[in-house]
Amino acid sequence: MALVAIVMGSESDRAVMAATSKVLTEFEVEHTSHVLSAHRTPDALRAFVVGAEEAGYEVIIAAAGGAAALPGVVKSHSRLPVIGVPLASSELHGIDALLSILQMPPRVPVATVAVGDWGARNAGYLAVEILALHHAAIRERYRAFRRRLAESG
Amino acid sequence: MALVAIVMGSESDRAVMAATSKVLTEFEVEHTSHVLSAHRTPDALRAFVVGAEEAGYEVIIAAAGGAAALPGVVKSHSRLPVIGVPLASSELHGIDALLSILQMPPRVPVATVAVGDWGARNAGYLAVEILALHHAAIRERYRAFRRRLAESG
Amino acid sequence: MALVAIVMGSESDRAVMAATSKVLTEFEVEHTSHVLSAHRTPDALRAFVVGAEEAGYEVIIAAAGGAAALPGVVKSHSRLPVIGVPLASSELHGIDALLSILQMPPRVPVATVAVGDWGARNAGYLAVEILALHHAAIRERYRAFRRRLAESG
Amino acid sequence: MALVAIVMGSESDRAVMAATSKVLTEFEVEHTSHVLSAHRTPDALRAFVVGAEEAGYEVIIAAAGGAAALPGVVKSHSRLPVIGVPLASSELHGIDALLSILQMPPRVPVATVAVGDWGARNAGYLAVEILALHHAAIRERYRAFRRRLAESG
Amino acid sequence: MALVAIVMGSESDRAVMAATSKVLTEFEVEHTSHVLSAHRTPDALRAFVVGAEEAGYEVIIAAAGGAAALPGVVKSHSRLPVIGVPLASSELHGIDALLSILQMPPRVPVATVAVGDWGARNAGYLAVEILALHHAAIRERYRAFRRRLAESG
Amino acid sequence: MALVAIVMGSESDRAVMAATSKVLTEFEVEHTSHVLSAHRTPDALRAFVVGAEEAGYEVIIAAAGGAAALPGVVKSHSRLPVIGVPLASSELHGIDALLSILQMPPRVPVATVAVGDWGARNAGYLAVEILALHHAAIRERYRAFRRRLAESG
Amino acid sequence: MALVAIVMGSESDRAVMAATSKVLTEFEVEHTSHVLSAHRTPDALRAFVVGAEEAGYEVIIAAAGGAAALPGVVKSHSRLPVIGVPLASSELHGIDALLSILQMPPRVPVATVAVGDWGARNAGYLAVEILALHHAAIRERYRAFRRRLAESG
Amino acid sequence: MALVAIVMGSESDRAVMAATSKVLTEFEVEHTSHVLSAHRTPDALRAFVVGAEEAGYEVIIAAAGGAAALPGVVKSHSRLPVIGVPLASSELHGIDALLSILQMPPRVPVATVAVGDWGARNAGYLAVEILALHHAAIRERYRAFRRRLAESG
Repeated sequence: MALVAIVMGSESDRAVMAATSKVLTEFEVEHTSHVLSAHRTPDALRAFVVGAEEAGYEVIIAAAGGAAALPGVVKSHSRLPVIGVPLASSELHGIDALLSILQMPPRVPVATVAVGDWGARNAGYLAVEILALHHAAIRERYRAFRRRLAESG
Repeated sequence: MALVAIVMGSESDRAVMAATSKVLTEFEVEHTSHVLSAHRTPDALRAFVVGAEEAGYEVIIAAAGGAAALPGVVKSHSRLPVIGVPLASSELHGIDALLSILQMPPRVPVATVAVGDWGARNAGYLAVEILALHHAAIRERYRAFRRRLAESG
Repeated sequence: MALVAIVMGSESDRAVMAATSKVLTEFEVEHTSHVLSAHRTPDALRAFVVGAEEAGYEVIIAAAGGAAALPGVVKSHSRLPVIGVPLASSELHGIDALLSILQMPPRVPVATVAVGDWGARNAGYLAVEILALHHAAIRERYRAFRRRLAESG
Repeated sequence: MALVAIVMGSESDRAVMAATSKVLTEFEVEHTSHVLSAHRTPDALRAFVVGAEEAGYEVIIAAAGGAAALPGVVKSHSRLPVIGVPLASSELHGIDALLSILQMPPRVPVATVAVGDWGARNAGYLAVEILALHHAAIRERYRAFRRRLAESG
Repeated sequence: MALVAIVMGSESDRAVMAATSKVLTEFEVEHTSHVLSAHRTPDALRAFVVGAEEAGYEVIIAAAGGAAALPGVVKSHSRLPVIGVPLASSELHGIDALLSILQMPPRVPVATVAVGDWGARNAGYLAVEILALHHAAIRERYRAFRRRLAESG
Repeated sequence: MALVAIVMGSESDRAVMAATSKVLTEFEVEHTSHVLSAHRTPDALRAFVVGAEEAGYEVIIAAAGGAAALPGVVKSHSRLPVIGVPLASSELHGIDALLSILQMPPRVPVATVAVGDWGARNAGYLAVEILALHHAAIRERYRAFRRRLAESG
Repeated sequence: MALVAIVMGSESDRAVMAATSKVLTEFEVEHTSHVLSAHRTPDALRAFVVGAEEAGYEVIIAAAGGAAALPGVVKSHSRLPVIGVPLASSELHGIDALLSILQMPPRVPVATVAVGDWGARNAGYLAVEILALHHAAIRERYRAFRRRLAESG
Repeated sequence: MALVAIVMGSESDRAVMAATSKVLTEFEVEHTSHVLSAHRTPDALRAFVVGAEEAGYEVIIAAAGGAAALPGVVKSHSRLPVIGVPLASSELHGIDALLSILQMPPRVPVATVAVGDWGARNAGYLAVEILALHHAAIRERYRAFRRRLAESG
């Protein structure tokens, strides 16, 4: 059963978000990917997010560029932790997405990571760390990863 | 019947958005004000916006600070023109709200105006200009305003 | 009869602004395109804008880069709604144009959209939304577009 | 037993980080607060962080201003999820802290929240959401909070 | 006969632009001050600027905040050197005005000076330096000023 | 006799500053070009600038990138009007040069123009406008240029 | 004999730079303070800097705001290490000074520290660290300081 | 015996930091290069830095991109002067690294130089200047370099 849902605003985001999927696969975390737009298909997005918890998802990763409302809208409909990845898809190099995701008002946080590829990868690691708190098998894999990291950087 | 709905994300936005109401009142444009959050009360927001067109509204003005998803989310649910007002309510002086509102992806525009008080006032004028295209009484009042403006600045 | 005028500051803006024209054509909105500079040919610009309303135009879209005075100057001479498109034509990637267009002082708003191609396309959609309020045929086409958008994103 | 450690770089950060503590207390999440500097007391910081997991902590919240290395250094020593709060304590209004915390390189993410008070509060909510995945009592309290939020915003 | 015209966009700019007038007075350069808006009173502005050269003006100083089109519009109508002063009157601390004035396209330059009070004063000194090239009395006063500056800073 | 000196901080600036020379040549304004660094060859720079007025120069154009001290240092040694051109030669796209040149303290202004090629060209036009005030032949050529500009943009 | 010279561009910088002096005094490092402007009194500045090495100075600390040419100009005349402190004295909050000091071209570095008070203090500590390499008494005092820092933060 | 250690956060930083090594080699300053990450291998980094002074190093140059904690962490463990080089390795062009390095809190300065290649080279020159204070051979070479610089720029 998939534990992590990766939601992105546009088909053109698939390339960069493949890096998230790759990290989750390395830790054997089942996950699914979805293209759903907060601005163009809000009802389809809402339907997916509202049902995500019951469907067994535990973490949602949401990636978007420009006026990146997606992560915040996902959070507005979900009790699960939401990780936001700002993408550099507009003329403004991701600064717009960064601030659109990070500056969430009190009570509805989005766990924001770095812009672009760095963030796409780190969204995967952050999801793994959260899941490792209560999934023993993931915890073991993450601990092994950290040992390798400490040794070889 | 109200033609303009003013939606804002927080009770604390009422002070600055009173300037919008004042402009609309000067042009005798009926309007209503609503505090509805894209992040905290998304379903109440959606319910209002989805019904706005049938209720007779023709323009929606949406104001928010920080990760200002409100105007874009309003647009996602409405066929009406949406005017967005970035507010300077976070530590970042409104730059976050500005980019969160302006950088909407293709097909779902938000008509963005200046940050803070200037924008709150101009949202009112912009709504008047749009309505003046097909409401003769508003057009007459706007034309009179422009004559006074040209004379006395 | 053309309802929308697209004004741009330089011949080199034609490529990006073709996207605006394409959107308007999709909705069968008649429009014309003009290269007129606020800084180099102010009197020709003024002559066109002052006569635009009587010529039947209902919305003016103005696009410029750098110290992008064009949209504001168009607004100074017209009672019609003016949509501003910031272009990324200078060394500063459009941030200069964005602020030059957005930060209009009270009473003379410009409806600003995103920088570059996104904004060029959205200027078209925003014009369509404004016209749809009182042109039934455009309204039908816009409603059909929104149904397709909700279905397929 | 405390589940959350709040670490901040300076005594002067206590005022803003009291908001984090207040949120955690509302959800009856035991926590402790610590002033430890990545730059002035690196060994004391390291000693605390290295022992945090065995001491029962499950989430670490780290807050700092300026060249805010603290959250990243905490993450470098810990397998637990780390939430970073950028503070606006320097002349640069928190933009320096924001980028110093958000732009972590691949493999060592920090879950970054908004600058200043908004982020201090949201760090608490984000910790609660993470803990709610596997602590039933916290989950119940968080679900009750979300019901209230949906009703009254 | 006045050699310098100081034009500002708003009555509220008078306080800061008094510093320009003070500098010109110190060098006994006759000048006049005018509140004329590029956006609200474009025809009155154009009328003044078009007649300025024949009226004997040799330099025009233009000051504005926000989307500061004023200096560029003055230049569009005049063959005289135009000095632009960005004012910090909007929420964005003058960065908007700075870029709106500085980034003029080729062939229509505005000589831009610093934001706010520093720039208001330096606009006066720059006008004096330009006039000193061909007005012997001003040149003598400017040379005396530079001797004092070199001695006492 | 040369009326304008073009000073640039590095051999690598010659390409962009050729645009300045081209403009001056079009108006038949004699000028010379010099590579002199405020930071690497301060005494050679000072020697040239101190003697420039007596050598017959009337305007100095100074171009530099990065921590662009050159225009300000030229002004510190000269009573002539100094035009500053910010170049985009560092990793920061000219924002560093722009602020290093524009934000001169009171009493020692630099007439700043746009970043890069636009500014290089406009520095030439601004010099021509200043010289046109008292050189009749240049004035005639500049007036002819403005007539052509008004006609064909 | 004084080992450190503190140079600042304006009398108004004395308040913030008192923090530098306080640090140096704590380490018993003799030093002198000077108000000398790169832009208003370049020859007096040059005279002081050119003689500084022979006068026994080993480090020069230079502080300035706005277009902060001072540290770079000091470096252009001196073989000694130069520490630059950006001050927030203009409308732009020190970002202008920061970039004007940091972005020195190759071969003439300025060791830049944080904006404002933090940097004023750190300029003192950095000077102490450099002197501690070859002044045994300063080294002992600095080592004692670091022991106290490690203990009590 | 090596006097300077060059530490960088990633193998991918080697290309730009070769410029530092080249400068040190020109002045015959022995040095070593190390890839050590503050975030991925904090203990290996700490071990190296803690032993650096006893190993004979006198200056440490630390280069990193993104959330560039490396220079500050090096300083936290060392009494030696630390020079920080911000690298443009993330999507944000080095602005993130610049602020992460420059804005160190009081008592633990990092001597920051320009972003990227300029800074990589200047880190070498700055190290040479510091060492020249008490290494006679290096001083002679640096003085010869400055004579050549003054002559040929």
